[in-house]
Amino acid sequence: MTYEEARQLARGNMGHCHACPVCDGRGCKNTIPGPGSKGTGTVATRNFDAWQSIYLNLDTIAPDKGIDTSIEIFGEKFDLPVFAAPIGAVTNHYGTKYNEYEYTEIMTRGCRQAGIAAFTGDGLNEMFFEAGCAALEKSGCAIPTVKPWHKDLVFKKIDYAKARGAKAIAMDIDASGLPFLKAMTPPSGSKSVEELREFIEYAAIPFYIKGVMTVKGALKALEAGAAGIIVSNHGGRVLDHTPATAAVLPAIADAVGSRMQILVDGGIRTGHDVFKALALGADAVLIGRPFVVALYGGAEDGVAAYARKLKAELADCMAMTGCASLSDIDRSVICHG
Amino acid sequence: MTYEEARQLARGNMGHCHACPVCDGRGCKNTIPGPGSKGTGTVATRNFDAWQSIYLNLDTIAPDKGIDTSIEIFGEKFDLPVFAAPIGAVTNHYGTKYNEYEYTEIMTRGCRQAGIAAFTGDGLNEMFFEAGCAALEKSGCAIPTVKPWHKDLVFKKIDYAKARGAKAIAMDIDASGLPFLKAMTPPSGSKSVEELREFIEYAAIPFYIKGVMTVKGALKALEAGAAGIIVSNHGGRVLDHTPATAAVLPAIADAVGSRMQILVDGGIRTGHDVFKALALGADAVLIGRPFVVALYGGAEDGVAAYARKLKAELADCMAMTGCASLSDIDRSVICHG
Amino acid sequence: MTYEEARQLARGNMGHCHACPVCDGRGCKNTIPGPGSKGTGTVATRNFDAWQSIYLNLDTIAPDKGIDTSIEIFGEKFDLPVFAAPIGAVTNHYGTKYNEYEYTEIMTRGCRQAGIAAFTGDGLNEMFFEAGCAALEKSGCAIPTVKPWHKDLVFKKIDYAKARGAKAIAMDIDASGLPFLKAMTPPSGSKSVEELREFIEYAAIPFYIKGVMTVKGALKALEAGAAGIIVSNHGGRVLDHTPATAAVLPAIADAVGSRMQILVDGGIRTGHDVFKALALGADAVLIGRPFVVALYGGAEDGVAAYARKLKAELADCMAMTGCASLSDIDRSVICHG
Amino acid sequence: MTYEEARQLARGNMGHCHACPVCDGRGCKNTIPGPGSKGTGTVATRNFDAWQSIYLNLDTIAPDKGIDTSIEIFGEKFDLPVFAAPIGAVTNHYGTKYNEYEYTEIMTRGCRQAGIAAFTGDGLNEMFFEAGCAALEKSGCAIPTVKPWHKDLVFKKIDYAKARGAKAIAMDIDASGLPFLKAMTPPSGSKSVEELREFIEYAAIPFYIKGVMTVKGALKALEAGAAGIIVSNHGGRVLDHTPATAAVLPAIADAVGSRMQILVDGGIRTGHDVFKALALGADAVLIGRPFVVALYGGAEDGVAAYARKLKAELADCMAMTGCASLSDIDRSVICHG
Repeated sequence: MTYEEARQLARGNMGHCHACPVCDGRGCKNTIPGPGSKGTGTVATRNFDAWQSIYLNLDTIAPDKGIDTSIEIFGEKFDLPVFAAPIGAVTNHYGTKYNEYEYTEIMTRGCRQAGIAAFTGDGLNEMFFEAGCAALEKSGCAIPTVKPWHKDLVFKKIDYAKARGAKAIAMDIDASGLPFLKAMTPPSGSKSVEELREFIEYAAIPFYIKGVMTVKGALKALEAGAAGIIVSNHGGRVLDHTPATAAVLPAIADAVGSRMQILVDGGIRTGHDVFKALALGADAVLIGRPFVVALYGGAEDGVAAYARKLKAELADCMAMTGCASLSDIDRSVICHG
Repeated sequence: MTYEEARQLARGNMGHCHACPVCDGRGCKNTIPGPGSKGTGTVATRNFDAWQSIYLNLDTIAPDKGIDTSIEIFGEKFDLPVFAAPIGAVTNHYGTKYNEYEYTEIMTRGCRQAGIAAFTGDGLNEMFFEAGCAALEKSGCAIPTVKPWHKDLVFKKIDYAKARGAKAIAMDIDASGLPFLKAMTPPSGSKSVEELREFIEYAAIPFYIKGVMTVKGALKALEAGAAGIIVSNHGGRVLDHTPATAAVLPAIADAVGSRMQILVDGGIRTGHDVFKALALGADAVLIGRPFVVALYGGAEDGVAAYARKLKAELADCMAMTGCASLSDIDRSVICHG
Repeated sequence: MTYEEARQLARGNMGHCHACPVCDGRGCKNTIPGPGSKGTGTVATRNFDAWQSIYLNLDTIAPDKGIDTSIEIFGEKFDLPVFAAPIGAVTNHYGTKYNEYEYTEIMTRGCRQAGIAAFTGDGLNEMFFEAGCAALEKSGCAIPTVKPWHKDLVFKKIDYAKARGAKAIAMDIDASGLPFLKAMTPPSGSKSVEELREFIEYAAIPFYIKGVMTVKGALKALEAGAAGIIVSNHGGRVLDHTPATAAVLPAIADAVGSRMQILVDGGIRTGHDVFKALALGADAVLIGRPFVVALYGGAEDGVAAYARKLKAELADCMAMTGCASLSDIDRSVICHG
Repeated sequence: MTYEEARQLARGNMGHCHACPVCDGRGCKNTIPGPGSKGTGTVATRNFDAWQSIYLNLDTIAPDKGIDTSIEIFGEKFDLPVFAAPIGAVTNHYGTKYNEYEYTEIMTRGCRQAGIAAFTGDGLNEMFFEAGCAALEKSGCAIPTVKPWHKDLVFKKIDYAKARGAKAIAMDIDASGLPFLKAMTPPSGSKSVEELREFIEYAAIPFYIKGVMTVKGALKALEAGAAGIIVSNHGGRVLDHTPATAAVLPAIADAVGSRMQILVDGGIRTGHDVFKALALGADAVLIGRPFVVALYGGAEDGVAAYARKLKAELADCMAMTGCASLSDIDRSVICHG
């Protein structure tokens, strides 16, 4: 099975998602529930477009040493620096084909097959977080992602995830503006550096803050003790009119890249985009929507096929720019259009 | 009632205005009478587009302190830094549904309901200015705006407005090129700093000069003793080929922002745009056409609904960028695309 | 009669020219014979577009002193700094409605009516130059423009023009690449500084070099003793892929503007464009195609109507930017988009 | 025969190639087999577009000395600085009208007729390289281009070419990512500076490295002893998302232009583009697809006609910018849009 075959099979079976040939946010703008981004819907598109304006510096005068796309992160070695992004409420956004448990289990199995891992999601319904932890327990290759709830609930979820074997945990801090979070009692939402530090110390496993878009935010995450950040605007789903993640990544990498890990998501669709993200300073990337399409069309084989496609493209970019391993990929191998 | 409901009801009942889904000047270019902008009609569109190229710096690592959108200005406290722009000759531009008195009274009542105020207009017909002052007298929340007539008429209008309770007054100096003003005897039109100073001293209440687009103009307004300026190109209706207000605002704010108040209008449609205007250095904004649409579709409830929408969007932008009050909104919370 | 009425009447009566609502080179690209520009046809469009990206700095805080659009140049006073550009071979490009004599006489009469003058053309057919000189003799308001022929022919044409009363003469040096010039014996074409100096000294009346697009070229014209230059790419008709005249004008004006007169043409269509050209450093402008349209649709009244329209727009721009006379128009009254 | 006539005749007879009126990569994106570029297909288009944003500095104040477009390179004198690019596997990409031997022989005959030469290609099928060498033997005007095979095969091909009279040889190093090369045993692909030096010393005739897109790569080619490089991204056919060749050429020319020859290809279609490439620092250019179209439509006469068209356009650009010979063409005769 190829990704394209999986995508064809997914069409018509994904609720609000059209499984478009090019997943650039143009077909689903402002579709929530569904895969769209908020308001004008331009953020998802901007994310996608930003990668297109970064070009690769072809250079094949280089020793022919073979290509290694592997990465060590989260205390493990993975076949490529790509992870499936956390997705919650799949029945709400993608229709009733899979429930949360089925979705999460298939995703982690597909990732395991491809030598990578998945971030799993969270939500108002307790089942969302539990489904992710169940998949983690079975597969061993998931990173649970907790929302910025009030303190007690965050502690409880950290305990729950660790009990299922979590080696790392993430919090999508940018979810603080979601209506269901703001409506809770006691209130959920944005967290100060001190509050984050409390969570991080309590967790005592590597903790990643997802939803950082500024140098200032990255420095706060560092100050709070995070093992890393995920440069992300939540695919445009939490605030309209943000910049593209590719646009803010370089300055963030320059400021904190030597002191913490940096992952990035937003509009990354091909191995070329993965290569560009690494060149701009990311250690690894998260990809959301296309993994969902691959899963709805091809189940775990679809997920693995998409990862294989990414790996082949990444390896090709590396070979054609004279990079033998991920550590060779720096800003000298790209330029801007 | 929501703004969208009001807009739907307005369609077909607004003369030359189509009450478009996105009010960006594209549907009405060069339509005068009507809501269009002059000549090529590109100024209204440029105003709108300029806000779209300013992006918000998402950052939710911040204490969760609640959001305050209120502002003190014109000697009063308002719920949000948004005011309805002065509109004159409504039967000419928007059809016969409301006369000037009805329009102005409904607008000020809607503004009062939403905790804001309206600027009211002026024109060749004495009734235009009187209607605004009548609404001011009833609601207490209007700022009369006088055109740059010859000296005696300006004095007379200042007296008239003060007698109806005006706490502040404005002059749209950029109206000096309108044909009916140029045709008057004695001549009306542009005013020197000395002439403006005479008006301002005579008024003896805070005086705002509307239609400033350059640092030089802002410095002249300051020299004349104005309490503030409104950075405005009159929505493109007095001169074709001007820059966007968002483009000139930052330099003007840098030059005079610490010494006088700065308001801005032109293409501001959402709370995101309001947020961006404040980030670029404005104290508050004026909005024209969408308030007219809201009024024609939903009367005072439509006006209030539009203001509520703006407030919710503004509060969301503040929460998602870590701003608890308007004074937290500075240039660090935005970037340019 | 208005220009718009003349344009409507011209439609269908102008050979290869469509008399488009907006004369921006898009409707006639690569149409030669006809009014088009050469090759890709993008130069005419680029000329036009360049003026659109220059914006006017609205500022009406200024004394109301009245507006004076007049200029002294070529030893005369004109009502506005606009001249009709030289056009040759009208039957070839615009059909058979007028022959060269009729065209030139009507154009100069229209210009005289409007208080301006026309440059007249030249070509392989002796009649082209003679028609212009005949119109000069009758109207007194024409500047004959000679092509870069071989020396003897240039001398002969200078004599001819002076005998008909020429107070100034021009040479469109950029015509040197036209096939009919290159095919002549003895060869015609580009001229060295020395050759130009010989022409200029022989003429002993103010001599203008038309078709200068670089600082280097302007300095050579200055060295040769020209009274002025016309910054021009011949409307895109002699070389594809040149920059817009508006793009090269500022540097040329900075380099030689204090030492010689600078005129400019290329895509100037409105009084706003005239204003922008002056702001960038031109003393006056030439306009080609729209004057032709005005003439074919409205004869001399059409020409005068177009000039009146330009004057009203120019005066409006001046009033709205605080400029009382042409000498007030400098680079501070515009900005770039 | 003109190029346009040849193109019309070629339509429908070129397999996957449409022989488009403007060969800009838009009609064939991602068509491989066929003339398309890889993946998104944007590289071919970007190559083409980059030349369009470079403008010519019209200047005809210059002595009229005649125009010389000739060049000395590869130990010979050619009529213009243009060479046909190497194309392999023509039946695969352009249908069955010509086999490799016929194609190559016609191409070199057409080039000979026009006073230029062709680079000939290589591929998995030995016949591809042999066909080029056969044409070289007959015409004397071909530069064989060898792919980056394993060492023994490269040596063998160098011997083969020299035995047929090669005065220069090229290697398209950027072909190292082609699937058939990567699949070989022993492995073919990218080469270190040391490996290249071995080839170059073994060849002992001028050796050109094709597929250099960075200053770093150019310096490596220099270090390896190459006589020159061809700045090329292989028309977008070996790696998606590379920059345009016109975008990287100037920096490469600045770095190594005084120490080795620089050729460039990618989207060059007209004599204007040739002129621009030389102005940016190239000594000569290669052109691929349009020569193929010319050949399929007009055989050797089509090839010669296309070269004549290029020469006339180049000569016109030179005359209109005051350049008498190729050495006059420097960066002062162009500007960027």
